[in-house]
Amino acid sequence: MTAAQRNKTEAAIAAIIAVRKNAPLVHCITNTVAQNFTANCLLACGATPSMTSSPQEVEYFCSHADSLLLNLGTLDEDRRKAITLSSGIAKKNNLPIVIDPVMLQISPVRQELLVKLLSQNPAIIRVNKNEAMALKALNADLSEICLVETGVHDKICYRNKILTVSNGDPWLEKITAIGCAQGALMAALLVEAKHAEIAALAGLLWTGIAGELAGNAATGPASFAVNFIDQLHCVSAEQIRQKAATQ
Amino acid sequence: MTAAQRNKTEAAIAAIIAVRKNAPLVHCITNTVAQNFTANCLLACGATPSMTSSPQEVEYFCSHADSLLLNLGTLDEDRRKAITLSSGIAKKNNLPIVIDPVMLQISPVRQELLVKLLSQNPAIIRVNKNEAMALKALNADLSEICLVETGVHDKICYRNKILTVSNGDPWLEKITAIGCAQGALMAALLVEAKHAEIAALAGLLWTGIAGELAGNAATGPASFAVNFIDQLHCVSAEQIRQKAATQ
Amino acid sequence: MTAAQRNKTEAAIAAIIAVRKNAPLVHCITNTVAQNFTANCLLACGATPSMTSSPQEVEYFCSHADSLLLNLGTLDEDRRKAITLSSGIAKKNNLPIVIDPVMLQISPVRQELLVKLLSQNPAIIRVNKNEAMALKALNADLSEICLVETGVHDKICYRNKILTVSNGDPWLEKITAIGCAQGALMAALLVEAKHAEIAALAGLLWTGIAGELAGNAATGPASFAVNFIDQLHCVSAEQIRQKAATQ
Repeated sequence: MTAAQRNKTEAAIAAIIAVRKNAPLVHCITNTVAQNFTANCLLACGATPSMTSSPQEVEYFCSHADSLLLNLGTLDEDRRKAITLSSGIAKKNNLPIVIDPVMLQISPVRQELLVKLLSQNPAIIRVNKNEAMALKALNADLSEICLVETGVHDKICYRNKILTVSNGDPWLEKITAIGCAQGALMAALLVEAKHAEIAALAGLLWTGIAGELAGNAATGPASFAVNFIDQLHCVSAEQIRQKAATQ
Repeated sequence: MTAAQRNKTEAAIAAIIAVRKNAPLVHCITNTVAQNFTANCLLACGATPSMTSSPQEVEYFCSHADSLLLNLGTLDEDRRKAITLSSGIAKKNNLPIVIDPVMLQISPVRQELLVKLLSQNPAIIRVNKNEAMALKALNADLSEICLVETGVHDKICYRNKILTVSNGDPWLEKITAIGCAQGALMAALLVEAKHAEIAALAGLLWTGIAGELAGNAATGPASFAVNFIDQLHCVSAEQIRQKAATQ
Repeated sequence: MTAAQRNKTEAAIAAIIAVRKNAPLVHCITNTVAQNFTANCLLACGATPSMTSSPQEVEYFCSHADSLLLNLGTLDEDRRKAITLSSGIAKKNNLPIVIDPVMLQISPVRQELLVKLLSQNPAIIRVNKNEAMALKALNADLSEICLVETGVHDKICYRNKILTVSNGDPWLEKITAIGCAQGALMAALLVEAKHAEIAALAGLLWTGIAGELAGNAATGPASFAVNFIDQLHCVSAEQIRQKAATQ
């Protein structure tokens, strides 16, 4: 780890500590598969979730929130309306936005919505490898956005620099909604870090190292998921410092 | 504990035993975050959940149900219609109703709907502190309703008397949908107790004491949640009698 | 076990091994209560879930899927449209279909939709006892469909023959969405078995024997659910062979 990487890791740890202390309120418009797990991950991290995706209600919830997660899974008509409305409110109120364009490669409906959302200045877009390729195919201007591509080695691409995080556990691929929860957690971290690259790094370290600790005691994917949430709550700043594999 | 408090505690324990024996069917119109957890809590308690919030279907489910839970979370248009329809059927069929006006303080849509629902004679309204203040601000006539305000010390306000329950565990604040499940459980208990104050007391004792037992073995919020549901199923009448902190 | 039953059991085990190896993609239109649990069960079994029920999106997801689960729980208008659309695409693309008509006996809306779906040649219909009676009352031609009726003894009825499976655990009745996940798993198995009776048998053996192994270590319904998913992932072909109670 270079001195610059070490400094960024320390800034990420400071953001994690601040989330635990300040309990930022993240409004999550997310898919129905991930809602419960995402809410429990945010609570385990010390953040406060709200979850409605009713177009008639998002305005009120966004005006109380500190940041916004827009996850494009199970994208029904209400969610599309709510996402469009809330991204406008977030831009007006200067709330940081994380976008998670789940399975972007399969659905033109999600591609079309994502193109519109890019004009609202999202801070972070979180994708896996297939989603990254679909995002690239949109030929959009991403120069001001922090792009997080998760995989065995996670990559944070921001202003032509790439930071790599190699924490994690194979079980993370075997439970649903891990990536969705990761995006929500980055939204919480943006409130404290006020810097997209640091929030993204903090989210990857927090989930990756909680995953490593959880994996040690797991006997299958469901016991892993229970341990993972427990470890999001329990992992210490010192454990994160020692295990961080930032490059 | 006074003799009157002891008598109420015994009546509450009798209602818990009756739910386990008779498996009342509770139709729950509840938010998408809480549905799975609520269904599993009801099953662990011996009750039978049904969960649809489709306006085209609630009539059929309500006509088979023994009681009704109306939870105002993730309040989309379908839910609003289904809640209005089902509260009318419940009133007509004399089904007891529990209302849980989740995050009432944030959403005028929920405030407006709640005012309408108060005319359907709900037996119990369950709120936390912030929701209690928003409810008070509505200036509605609550004189015939049993109001349950949860917190470190839970309060049951019924016909100008206040009963306090001090059971529980700090982890209960760290997982989502505990309050939502509590409301559903009170709806099941209303079928057996036929008395709002006793059903509310039974719900608070059951969840509070299961929480205490679960907390002993938890290593974080998710293992707590697993233990909590296990304890809802396992806790004995004698354990509830010994640990009840009714005042 | 007769030689014929033994051969079918071996074919079922081969299908289980093939799902773990080939990761078939199952598009699930299922109720909001069961989505998360179903996705995690499919992942634990090595299959790949997709879950949207948006009518604007199901076409794209079905065209990438290997099979289709249609679960009629929480049947709102979007789900009805999505089910109708996707069953048409599945028929056109020769995707095998599993139908789970949850609580068919209560909702005429579900009965009407099921009658329409029967013309799309579903491979398997999965029901419990009450749903089986409601299905019988529809007087539909089921002669080409494999009917799975679950209970203490599960029955697979196919072309006038009945196969009985007596694996399972009482805890399976105490957690929500087990049956829903079972239907999804049969959809994954249909991709590999290419024979409805074998896919149904494999689904019942896999879930029943995972349930038996999970029950040994459970202290209540939620720890059972965690163990169950772990065992879906861990149970070996040899354990299934030894414990299979096919008759």
